[in-house]
Amino acid sequence: MNFKYRTHTCGELRESNIGQNVVLNGWVENRRDLGGVIFIDLRDRYGITQIVFEPGYNSEAHKIGGELRSEFVVAVEGKVRRRPEGTENSQLPTGLIDVMIDQIVVLNKAETTPFQIKDKIDVTEDLRLKYRYLDLRRGRMQKNLLLRHKVYQLVRNYFDQNNFVEIETPILMKSTPEGARDFLVPSRMHKGKFYALPQSPQTYKQILMVSGFDKYFQIVKCFRDEDLRADRQPEFTQIDVEMSFVDTPQIFETVEGLMALLYKEILGYELKTPLKQLPFDEAMEKYGSDKPDIRYELEMKTLNKTVESSEFKVFSDAVKSDGIVTGLLAKNCGDYTRSQLDVLTDFVKKLGAGGLIWMRVKENNDLDAPIAKFLSEEEKLNIVSKMDAEAGDLIFILAGPKLKTLSIMGELRKEMAKRLDLLKPDAEPAMLWVTDFPLFEWDEDTKRYYAMHHPFTSPRFEDVDKLETSPGDVRAKAYDLVLNGNEIAGGSIRIHNSSLQSKMFKALGISEEEATSKFGFLLNAFKYGAPPHGGIAFGLDRMVMLFARESSIRDVIAFPKTASGMSLMDESPSTVDEEQLKDLHIRLKK
Amino acid sequence: MNFKYRTHTCGELRESNIGQNVVLNGWVENRRDLGGVIFIDLRDRYGITQIVFEPGYNSEAHKIGGELRSEFVVAVEGKVRRRPEGTENSQLPTGLIDVMIDQIVVLNKAETTPFQIKDKIDVTEDLRLKYRYLDLRRGRMQKNLLLRHKVYQLVRNYFDQNNFVEIETPILMKSTPEGARDFLVPSRMHKGKFYALPQSPQTYKQILMVSGFDKYFQIVKCFRDEDLRADRQPEFTQIDVEMSFVDTPQIFETVEGLMALLYKEILGYELKTPLKQLPFDEAMEKYGSDKPDIRYELEMKTLNKTVESSEFKVFSDAVKSDGIVTGLLAKNCGDYTRSQLDVLTDFVKKLGAGGLIWMRVKENNDLDAPIAKFLSEEEKLNIVSKMDAEAGDLIFILAGPKLKTLSIMGELRKEMAKRLDLLKPDAEPAMLWVTDFPLFEWDEDTKRYYAMHHPFTSPRFEDVDKLETSPGDVRAKAYDLVLNGNEIAGGSIRIHNSSLQSKMFKALGISEEEATSKFGFLLNAFKYGAPPHGGIAFGLDRMVMLFARESSIRDVIAFPKTASGMSLMDESPSTVDEEQLKDLHIRLKK
Repeated sequence: MNFKYRTHTCGELRESNIGQNVVLNGWVENRRDLGGVIFIDLRDRYGITQIVFEPGYNSEAHKIGGELRSEFVVAVEGKVRRRPEGTENSQLPTGLIDVMIDQIVVLNKAETTPFQIKDKIDVTEDLRLKYRYLDLRRGRMQKNLLLRHKVYQLVRNYFDQNNFVEIETPILMKSTPEGARDFLVPSRMHKGKFYALPQSPQTYKQILMVSGFDKYFQIVKCFRDEDLRADRQPEFTQIDVEMSFVDTPQIFETVEGLMALLYKEILGYELKTPLKQLPFDEAMEKYGSDKPDIRYELEMKTLNKTVESSEFKVFSDAVKSDGIVTGLLAKNCGDYTRSQLDVLTDFVKKLGAGGLIWMRVKENNDLDAPIAKFLSEEEKLNIVSKMDAEAGDLIFILAGPKLKTLSIMGELRKEMAKRLDLLKPDAEPAMLWVTDFPLFEWDEDTKRYYAMHHPFTSPRFEDVDKLETSPGDVRAKAYDLVLNGNEIAGGSIRIHNSSLQSKMFKALGISEEEATSKFGFLLNAFKYGAPPHGGIAFGLDRMVMLFARESSIRDVIAFPKTASGMSLMDESPSTVDEEQLKDLHIRLKK
Repeated sequence: MNFKYRTHTCGELRESNIGQNVVLNGWVENRRDLGGVIFIDLRDRYGITQIVFEPGYNSEAHKIGGELRSEFVVAVEGKVRRRPEGTENSQLPTGLIDVMIDQIVVLNKAETTPFQIKDKIDVTEDLRLKYRYLDLRRGRMQKNLLLRHKVYQLVRNYFDQNNFVEIETPILMKSTPEGARDFLVPSRMHKGKFYALPQSPQTYKQILMVSGFDKYFQIVKCFRDEDLRADRQPEFTQIDVEMSFVDTPQIFETVEGLMALLYKEILGYELKTPLKQLPFDEAMEKYGSDKPDIRYELEMKTLNKTVESSEFKVFSDAVKSDGIVTGLLAKNCGDYTRSQLDVLTDFVKKLGAGGLIWMRVKENNDLDAPIAKFLSEEEKLNIVSKMDAEAGDLIFILAGPKLKTLSIMGELRKEMAKRLDLLKPDAEPAMLWVTDFPLFEWDEDTKRYYAMHHPFTSPRFEDVDKLETSPGDVRAKAYDLVLNGNEIAGGSIRIHNSSLQSKMFKALGISEEEATSKFGFLLNAFKYGAPPHGGIAFGLDRMVMLFARESSIRDVIAFPKTASGMSLMDESPSTVDEEQLKDLHIRLKK
């Protein structure tokens, strides 16, 4: 195809270019015919420039100009002029000029697009995903992906400047399902055997520490074959980091340096470091979440001490059985109607609570509450005082098993924050560390412990002895980085000693045989001089989503999949030839 | 684990640190006991520092020092001193100082390693791959991976600075096998359907051009399920690039800018640009290869015109049947013995040649050759003259079908270059473009044309008409970048028009139905305003291998697989649970 290559982009021309001959290449954003003169907004990813076809200026070009439709691709040549007075567009960086066209070549025509190429469109996401190539032309999506590009570069330059080594780990690896399901890849050369796609490069990055690479990072694709929740993807991108000869403080310092850089360059904020560190227990008791949104206060209060000897069985039983009684103060909500309270009761019941205890606080610390009759005057006084409540306020209380009850109250906290409009649109983003996670969580269904992070997480030194006696009480050297109520990174100091690692597998009910078959190479590696090490991994998709102020990670991924793991654009997954399956030594199950 | 964090790395201490108290963390490289004093070379990835345990200085530390073995991991604290006169080591950047140790903590012990941690070891590659965590501790491997790290950063910064956008394309994509086999991933959520791992992000990067991203790059993993040759990996890394509104010159300029940067920063050479461009036909006739090594001259000569009317049938038949007669001059090799010539004859026969014609050039243009009797005096004279031969030289000639014969002579050229020692160890790396590839290659077995690059490659504008009439004569807008006889990048200007793309599929014998089912989304995308575009992809592994002066790509990949696609460290691929296969709706073929 013969055409002239652009001398400038469509976002580049300014007053200083007036009088120059220029060539632009781009897409027709729209066409306006005004009294024989044709105006076209010509678009590329750098901006928009108005080009003008006047019959008296060049009649041939004017004729072609008249045939242009939206999304045609053209190469034009012409002269930059100052726009006639009164027609300047101060919204556009190029708004002071336009280009009078001498010559035009239509590089490609375009059919009418199924939706308009503009920021706000009212179509289903499925249609956008099917025509992703058009969806990605919209300014909003271009902005998101350009922001993502910027994050990549900032992250890598930061780690490079801090002496980290970027190392690629394999995508075709060993299947070691722990928690989520692996995607499998049948081997053609080894009949009956399979590779797995990595859920994370965890074992490899630890191996790299054993190899002495000291500081490693990688921006890497990871895979989980899970039933997808709204904001999960079967393949997602992780910023993966590991360091040797460190403990938690060194890792926090490294991460906070990165976050301060991103805050500054992306959001324009100065991040105050060191960040707040909140132990898991405190996070749960104050916010009912291990990823609390602390952009607003609204803290929960633990009332166990206040109600431990209550006549009201719901309270005292909860305390006795190691459960919790937790309260939330809804300031000035004493006028909530019965039906408003019923809605909130339903809200917590749907989450699994038995019911919601509420108390309207009256003058003189009197309580208007269904359970008031079960409480002594002193108890009422203590509750009001502990909750810092005043007349006109509303108190919510939940009692029950600890983590579950706190989580439900945490959801009620978020709901009340919405109703009370506590989250201001201009609130500064709030980031903190949650630390000291339990090493294990107990699963009622299978009656066994699971690793809360993963089985390579180090217990706190002082808790090692409890690994066998009371695993539930062991705290981990694990930490999450939380932004606006979202976990954006999680990590830990790792076990670097094969005998402690074996103990850990034992506590998890993983037999020695299974441990050897799955992780033998790591246990072996630990025998040849493994340094103390730890690391962290960031969910890049979610981080970029938050920076872009989007609400779906699909809006910051070029080619995402639907909740059922489909790519609507190319219709994958798809059927394949029988021949291909034969080569792989597998067949379909009927 | 309680230990002191390093104040310095093991490569950092100099004279200016003398007298300071320091903490080092690292590995014991070796231990020497000299008259009660213990010397240890302490190693990390930054270097080596000598640490000293003297019984009189600190007897407790000295005691532990005596128990250290190679590859133990330690944290030590002590005082930097000037080494006693005569014991300095000018080979080491830290060789003027050592550290007198006050305190030592053994962070981890090490069993005896299966091979020594040093640059030159005499063990099988399989053993190195099994213990990759130890192999990667060797200085040579660390250097290779650090070089690779540097290449990543240089490449990304270059593209970032040139306004390219880094965009991630999916790893789980649609299976569209064309040429090599796809790795398949069974879908759990969509019974009987499969994802494929990308052989390259080709279609996605073209979609990104349709989306207006204009300039794209990505360093990305690609996958090919091929029977592996020595120098291939089932997963490999590609620098992937695509640009809109360009033709070949703009792409060459971009790539040459990158290569000049890499040459300078990695190799310390000034790359002379623009690079030489060699059309495919000329490359084949002069060097017998589409990736010629031009660090040495030794050019082949086409003798068709010289011998077209020869009485010697081998020559004249080759010319008549559109074949080739090609000659190679071996300067001063007229004294090659019969047995040397037999070896070379065997060499070309193994490659498929019928035989090797040789001629010793004597005084007065006389030829000592088995075929001399079939040649006229004039013919002999013409051959000697065309070959620029002189008395004492040796001429080789091959005749036969064009590409095959030229390739064999190309191999003989390389063989003779070795024998003549033409490739000097200090030769400057030689880079060039090979251009104007045929669009198709004919496959004798299946009696059909295949795309020489891939089916999205644009024919040269002036050859479009031949697509239907004589596909074999159509030249492509395709180009390879060649370094020292290795293809390190390949690309093309693409088709950006759905009707030309359909013609191309037709020429390849791909039915409309098949084209729609496999590439329908791309053909559709082209209907909504696709810009002219083109791009290139670099084989990063091979490029880094060449820069590192290694001879195997496995030595520049952290965790490579063997020729049969095995990872010897973790023994993948491996068997998986029946349950996992059931979830994926597949079973093993008996």
